[in-house]
Amino acid sequence: MSLNIVVMAAGKGTRMKSSLPKVLHKLAGRALLRHVLANTASLQADARIVITGHGADQVEAAIGGEGVRFVRQEPQLGTGHAIQQTVPALTAGGSTLILSGDTPLISTATTRALVEACGGERLVLLTIEYADPTGYGRIVRDGDQVKAIVEHKDASDEQRRIRECYTGIMAAPTEALKRWVGQLDNKNAQGEYYLTDIVAMAVAEGVPVVGVKTADETEVLGVNSPSQLAHLERRFQLVQAEALMTAGVRLADPSRFDLRGTLTCGKDVEIDVNCVFEGEVTLGDGVRIGANCVIRNATIGAGARIHEFTHIDGEAAGASVGEGALIGPFARLRPGARLGAEVHIGNFVEVKNSTLAKGAKANHLAYLGDATVGERVNYGAGSITANYDGANKHRTTIGADVHVGSNCVLVAPVTLGDGATIGGGSTITKDVDPGALAVARGRQTVISGWSRPKKVK
Amino acid sequence: MSLNIVVMAAGKGTRMKSSLPKVLHKLAGRALLRHVLANTASLQADARIVITGHGADQVEAAIGGEGVRFVRQEPQLGTGHAIQQTVPALTAGGSTLILSGDTPLISTATTRALVEACGGERLVLLTIEYADPTGYGRIVRDGDQVKAIVEHKDASDEQRRIRECYTGIMAAPTEALKRWVGQLDNKNAQGEYYLTDIVAMAVAEGVPVVGVKTADETEVLGVNSPSQLAHLERRFQLVQAEALMTAGVRLADPSRFDLRGTLTCGKDVEIDVNCVFEGEVTLGDGVRIGANCVIRNATIGAGARIHEFTHIDGEAAGASVGEGALIGPFARLRPGARLGAEVHIGNFVEVKNSTLAKGAKANHLAYLGDATVGERVNYGAGSITANYDGANKHRTTIGADVHVGSNCVLVAPVTLGDGATIGGGSTITKDVDPGALAVARGRQTVISGWSRPKKVK
Amino acid sequence: MSLNIVVMAAGKGTRMKSSLPKVLHKLAGRALLRHVLANTASLQADARIVITGHGADQVEAAIGGEGVRFVRQEPQLGTGHAIQQTVPALTAGGSTLILSGDTPLISTATTRALVEACGGERLVLLTIEYADPTGYGRIVRDGDQVKAIVEHKDASDEQRRIRECYTGIMAAPTEALKRWVGQLDNKNAQGEYYLTDIVAMAVAEGVPVVGVKTADETEVLGVNSPSQLAHLERRFQLVQAEALMTAGVRLADPSRFDLRGTLTCGKDVEIDVNCVFEGEVTLGDGVRIGANCVIRNATIGAGARIHEFTHIDGEAAGASVGEGALIGPFARLRPGARLGAEVHIGNFVEVKNSTLAKGAKANHLAYLGDATVGERVNYGAGSITANYDGANKHRTTIGADVHVGSNCVLVAPVTLGDGATIGGGSTITKDVDPGALAVARGRQTVISGWSRPKKVK
Repeated sequence: MSLNIVVMAAGKGTRMKSSLPKVLHKLAGRALLRHVLANTASLQADARIVITGHGADQVEAAIGGEGVRFVRQEPQLGTGHAIQQTVPALTAGGSTLILSGDTPLISTATTRALVEACGGERLVLLTIEYADPTGYGRIVRDGDQVKAIVEHKDASDEQRRIRECYTGIMAAPTEALKRWVGQLDNKNAQGEYYLTDIVAMAVAEGVPVVGVKTADETEVLGVNSPSQLAHLERRFQLVQAEALMTAGVRLADPSRFDLRGTLTCGKDVEIDVNCVFEGEVTLGDGVRIGANCVIRNATIGAGARIHEFTHIDGEAAGASVGEGALIGPFARLRPGARLGAEVHIGNFVEVKNSTLAKGAKANHLAYLGDATVGERVNYGAGSITANYDGANKHRTTIGADVHVGSNCVLVAPVTLGDGATIGGGSTITKDVDPGALAVARGRQTVISGWSRPKKVK
Repeated sequence: MSLNIVVMAAGKGTRMKSSLPKVLHKLAGRALLRHVLANTASLQADARIVITGHGADQVEAAIGGEGVRFVRQEPQLGTGHAIQQTVPALTAGGSTLILSGDTPLISTATTRALVEACGGERLVLLTIEYADPTGYGRIVRDGDQVKAIVEHKDASDEQRRIRECYTGIMAAPTEALKRWVGQLDNKNAQGEYYLTDIVAMAVAEGVPVVGVKTADETEVLGVNSPSQLAHLERRFQLVQAEALMTAGVRLADPSRFDLRGTLTCGKDVEIDVNCVFEGEVTLGDGVRIGANCVIRNATIGAGARIHEFTHIDGEAAGASVGEGALIGPFARLRPGARLGAEVHIGNFVEVKNSTLAKGAKANHLAYLGDATVGERVNYGAGSITANYDGANKHRTTIGADVHVGSNCVLVAPVTLGDGATIGGGSTITKDVDPGALAVARGRQTVISGWSRPKKVK
Repeated sequence: MSLNIVVMAAGKGTRMKSSLPKVLHKLAGRALLRHVLANTASLQADARIVITGHGADQVEAAIGGEGVRFVRQEPQLGTGHAIQQTVPALTAGGSTLILSGDTPLISTATTRALVEACGGERLVLLTIEYADPTGYGRIVRDGDQVKAIVEHKDASDEQRRIRECYTGIMAAPTEALKRWVGQLDNKNAQGEYYLTDIVAMAVAEGVPVVGVKTADETEVLGVNSPSQLAHLERRFQLVQAEALMTAGVRLADPSRFDLRGTLTCGKDVEIDVNCVFEGEVTLGDGVRIGANCVIRNATIGAGARIHEFTHIDGEAAGASVGEGALIGPFARLRPGARLGAEVHIGNFVEVKNSTLAKGAKANHLAYLGDATVGERVNYGAGSITANYDGANKHRTTIGADVHVGSNCVLVAPVTLGDGATIGGGSTITKDVDPGALAVARGRQTVISGWSRPKKVK
């Protein structure tokens, strides 16, 4: 049986007070609308239709390439009007699932249940019981059958005591849906076409109307304001944290953990408070992440320790840390940092687009950019690879067992042979042979009894 | 009609266990007593009187200049005794509003309502309903009129079931108040003069006693201990966070956001987790603040990105970041940092009292102090302005398009002309002409087959 | 009367999904089992017995030296079987307190109450009332006497309404306990020997069975999963935070405070958000700790200010900061950092195994390792002690009032005499006499009209 998925994404989101269309706002680093599409991807719909309106160009540019078809709703005259626009695009027969682009956490299981309950024959409403249903449309039932959705303002006292409410999500028989939305009118105070009016049509036609109840409030929470977005973000982060803990990851504080992407963890991973993970991050067995780290698009090998205040951002190129490496505190790894096993990167050290072989160390206040560093190299405090001549970037190659002293400058392109030694304070502009000592600094001169500058008033 | 505002601020605050008087402890970076004064400033009272006692000198020194008159209460013999001290200072006629210096979040709206309800004629008590009123003084009513405040320990079983309680805040007809407090006695277990005893006097005289109820518990919460202070701080921070979100600011986690001062935001501002703002901070349209930033007294231009772990503190001088600038991570901007549009300040870079023109960059491990930096300057990794000769500070002037190599020292006062180039590792002590290359470093010498130091046992 | 304390610590903790035995997982930096032992240390038991099984070698190695005797339970055939193994080790007569190694926060007061209630004569069960007792074993009472513990699955509807539940903790007369566990059988679905079966034996023998109720859920919470561990961690951190606040410490956010060890504070200590303390930390009067600091094994003198993003880790050697010192932001103090009064350590500065006398300053991007620094020394931005020659560490000695310029390298071993001045950019390899100026850098040369490198396509 064919299936259409329709996502309403034309609304302005006035309360967001943003130039970004509401459905492009991000939850856990991903646009609300993308969550809806991802959560229903496994339903294998014949057509996936996104209704755009406000900021349509932005939405379509941002979401294109997800195998969706866009239908414009202009102007926006209500939910029923929105569905009217999709009629030509609906695959005939079967069921149509109607979702909201601002309700991001709708689950795969629930949407599948709606589609199954619909079966191309029944109108299925997703409902939820609220302790305080004030303001929501009530589900009026007659046994298993839903008789009506009554808006709060139109409800009798008895109806207001009903706690089962409509969530805005439904599945309908496609052919009936087409017929019903064609019959909608806008004779109401707002002058809008309401999709919920099709319930009465279904009842009148004798089409079964079914309510499927969810117990998970989170999946039907919509986002209409920055506050709602923030609160849903925290709920979702807790859900993600619980899932990781169930898998064995030890979090020092689940309410101070942010994952905006995918975190893959080995066994016995520990993550201290206030860490943020983004993009694709992989942590090997026994990895320990200290407090206040930010890690994006990176792979950390087994047994590595990432100390506090470490910032790793591999961006598109990625960054990797070898097994048993020690990184931080206050280290920064940038795109293309490829650190071998047991590498040590210490405080106030930046590594970019550089490969460090096993056991190499840069422990203090240093910069390694566009460098290839051999095994067991000791890269001194304050030393810098001058990789940029103001116009072009050049590489620095440091052989195995090289000892670079403190506050050196390695002016690229330059190669230091295996086992070379660079005296502290040297600016190296020419290649150094293996095993050689290179020094490039001034001779020490002394003026005795020197008179210091005096404080000027 | 005349209005007096009296704030009781003589208490010791024993449970604070602090050498600081209780009313000077800070909520959101501001003394408790200052909150009370600020929240009632718009009432335009004829007299604002603060009753001081414990730590009076400290309180008066800290709060002086707020247009308040201080009245000393020494010794402290109770709330009624406190008001007795103010009698000579009260403007005649009209109303007197009595507040507590340790109840900081009392609102403007509520205090205005109390004054209006008083109208110089009625005794008005601010009350609140508690789910669990245990320990609080109950409001005993006869219809609209309050008949008595009954302390919990003196209350009958029936009275203990009353959930409406007195908050310690009232407004009274000034002339009656003077008369009543003159009639108080201290014939009770504590030997204190209780202001609440005036309720019985008012009832006896037939003066109407009115209860004005607040629904907002936060505004009547007092601070008696560090724990209460911390909990009120968190409530207040959430209130501030919600207000910002309602205005369109996007906060990644409202419970990990601290504002101690004033934050003015443009449109589409995003603030990641665990940021702290202090003093006066302005963020332009589209500014994004990364996780774990601390920003004080600074202005950030539209579209600028402040990456994680950035510390900006303009102190009195202020600090500013231009439009589209990229700052951090691990950057520190200090007082007088004035960064133009599209300036880049990278990791482990400190800027103090320096002006950077459009497009200037200092991306790695560097110090710019007392410098004027031209457009498009590239300031190399590890380079330092030596602005302090041990006695005096001097300026460094860097022209447009200058390229400063890595690990340079610019010994101020020194000027680098437009388009000059400074070789890596140079210590520059003399001015450099425009377009010139200056190098000041040793020649590279090499000793082949050098024998490394050996490990000593 | 003699007392045995038996701690069951043989379980696998499958849901922890860890290679670490469950009882070695850490709460607030300390193994769960250690908490149990520490909380009962003051009971002065004649024997303290830990039953090990899964990961017994690891547990015994980790906990050895705490004055406990280990008894192996292999295989693990239930709680009754565990106690059977301890019979030969129990001191005769008196009472035996049976605790669980995964229930770390059991209090001294409660365990003492259990032992007293037992008195070598009564079987005492620690119980608690749950709002929702589903899943727990119910305490069936007949007046003061407990008649049975009924497992949830075996309970009648009436019994399921009982809210008092067994916590897994008990105290028993030692001799009776020995006899009872000898009579246990494993004729049940799981084929295990259940310790709770002794309740029926006690009742049958007419031994009084007493329930002692605790009101503190936290002390009976067990840890079976990373999620439970995290939630107990947060509860415990809040308990610790409240205790500190009651003592007068001002915490900006009790829910963003982590203490894993012991924090001793003077008067008027302020700790900003998101700080972590580990090991033994002492903060003197008036110390203020900025947001996002990590401090381990350190002593901070009165009036010192530790600015944001400061990392102090004294490890075994300790680290100390003198009175009135200013540290950070972005400072790192490592083991053996001994800072005198009014020392200033600024941003991106690392200090290791170094002593700084009163008033010494290293404010910007610097490394001090294995150094002795005199009073009032000004250690320039970017300067480095080259303490490691690739094989051995050497000391740097800097006399009082020395001024070290920017980006210097001090090649150890080297001594700078009192009042010496080191020119910026110098690499100092030889001692400098007191009062002398030492310079070791190249002469500035200039090439006019230099042609910059061009961008290569």
